[in-house]
Amino acid sequence: MITPRQVRRHLDQLTKPPGSLGRLEDLGARLCLLQNTLEPAVRPRRLVIFAGDHGVVAEGVTAWPAEVTALMIGNILDGGAASSVLARATGTELVVVDAGSRAAPLPPRTGYRDARVRAGSRNLAHEPALTPEEWDRATALGREEAEKARHDGVRVLAAGEMGIGNSTPAACLASLLLDLPAERVTGRGAGADDAVLARKLAVVAAAVEPARDVLAYDARRAIAAVAGCEIAAMAGLFAASHRLGLTVVLDGFIASAAALAAERLHPGTAGSLVAAHHSAEIGHRAVLAALGLEPLLDWGMRLGEGTGALLVMPLLDAAATVVGEMATFRDLGIERD
Amino acid sequence: MITPRQVRRHLDQLTKPPGSLGRLEDLGARLCLLQNTLEPAVRPRRLVIFAGDHGVVAEGVTAWPAEVTALMIGNILDGGAASSVLARATGTELVVVDAGSRAAPLPPRTGYRDARVRAGSRNLAHEPALTPEEWDRATALGREEAEKARHDGVRVLAAGEMGIGNSTPAACLASLLLDLPAERVTGRGAGADDAVLARKLAVVAAAVEPARDVLAYDARRAIAAVAGCEIAAMAGLFAASHRLGLTVVLDGFIASAAALAAERLHPGTAGSLVAAHHSAEIGHRAVLAALGLEPLLDWGMRLGEGTGALLVMPLLDAAATVVGEMATFRDLGIERD
Repeated sequence: MITPRQVRRHLDQLTKPPGSLGRLEDLGARLCLLQNTLEPAVRPRRLVIFAGDHGVVAEGVTAWPAEVTALMIGNILDGGAASSVLARATGTELVVVDAGSRAAPLPPRTGYRDARVRAGSRNLAHEPALTPEEWDRATALGREEAEKARHDGVRVLAAGEMGIGNSTPAACLASLLLDLPAERVTGRGAGADDAVLARKLAVVAAAVEPARDVLAYDARRAIAAVAGCEIAAMAGLFAASHRLGLTVVLDGFIASAAALAAERLHPGTAGSLVAAHHSAEIGHRAVLAALGLEPLLDWGMRLGEGTGALLVMPLLDAAATVVGEMATFRDLGIERD
Repeated sequence: MITPRQVRRHLDQLTKPPGSLGRLEDLGARLCLLQNTLEPAVRPRRLVIFAGDHGVVAEGVTAWPAEVTALMIGNILDGGAASSVLARATGTELVVVDAGSRAAPLPPRTGYRDARVRAGSRNLAHEPALTPEEWDRATALGREEAEKARHDGVRVLAAGEMGIGNSTPAACLASLLLDLPAERVTGRGAGADDAVLARKLAVVAAAVEPARDVLAYDARRAIAAVAGCEIAAMAGLFAASHRLGLTVVLDGFIASAAALAAERLHPGTAGSLVAAHHSAEIGHRAVLAALGLEPLLDWGMRLGEGTGALLVMPLLDAAATVVGEMATFRDLGIERD
């Protein structure tokens, strides 16, 4: 296994003052250690967007109608969504897996997989959103996508989500797993106004309380009760990617909440993650800190769909290129140390 | 002319919650306004690296031997420098203009222009680094490069520098033009230790004092006295690019000091600049603030060669793509507002 010291020595032989590329060198070093090489590869790469609907939208926790999930699945596949255009711009393959939306099934098409576990999660304000068995079926989708990526030679994988209302289960997971009050982790998501935010806060606080009791003796059941299909699928992808040695770019708050669940159930998962960005969502910093991750960007993004992960893909290109392609001082005939 | 309101309205029609891409939307809006279009173009793009040597290295203000400037010119052109590999990774054309190094002239080759104003600036600790006439000849090089870029259809231009010792004149310019004491703007450059930094501080403080007296009645002469050929060339490129309507990405501390000089001599220049990053150099924040610029990244970089500007080029791609290629809500049959 390559060591941090070997990576540092390599970086310091390159034709630049030691450390002068700052965090770009840190990122390059991280890629080396994740991939156990001094020539990390960041292409081909793929973003898997998992879709899901949420029974809890009946409580008025979002400004957007639930039908938007279905419309956006089509928009992503048709190339008009933010994720679609950023995937093109960054040379990232994009696939959509419907893990649990209420959308009408689409005809088969490239880059689309209809694998829904159920047509939307149950309303977590009144009953467990998912049973443990549903959680397992949804995480299996993520595991299958990680295995497929590995089989296809993908070097960097990311997971994104499309699911109106899913910042509510994400806030529940953060509150539950970090033992933080609802106020610390419940934000405005894609644009909640004060009234919506107040309802969301009350729903999160109420839903987490019974889950907390369950957590002590059955973590999977507690997590499933406040999660959703696409969140479970992302958690499954993260855990499996770690097992398979895949480098994974972590998107925003929802994806990070899924990573938190994965880390709880499969400790070590966070070790394969590169955090793309700190989002505008209030609880994100605490979740990233718990995962031991320092985000690359802090651009106030809050869209989801894996857009943050896509935005940093070229920064991974830059880091890998510096590590793998720069000349050394020896090449120039300069002896150092 | 397109207005900020028109740009905002366009961004809010795209299929995402308004403002949900945070600073990526701000960057997209900036590009629209700079280019007076809702479909900004960020390719083709070019980085011009100006090289120069500095008489002041005789004072022991840098840890690096002056010969490194020449070696690095060759390394950049041969494709082994940080700027070379990042230019390739980001699809940016790279050219080197020797504005005033002491390097042995290279045989003619693609991407290299030997146009040195003099073989290194004079030692600013003892005499004016450049005469006003030399300043003019060096800025003319930058103007010519801006004109050439415009002629070649370049949509985004950046300037970088290679010049051992040039963080000393840059600190002098920042101290002089922002009326700040040497301690506030003099940093470790590419890696000065405490002893080197102490000498550098003394040199900056002593050199700026006489220049300050001159500044009141002859700004060009005062600036030239503490500048250098590659800094003057960058200043010329920035001023001309603004006049020509070119979008310019601003690199780190040395480039920003050149921009400060350009803004002083040609007010309005900063209006065409997009600041790439906040560098590790202590005085950079103050210079960017004076230019009214908010950097895109804060990654602790301090290499120069335009590496910071290159690193953000793909972020410009992302912003331009979002603005120009996303579907609107109307495309999806959703009426808003």
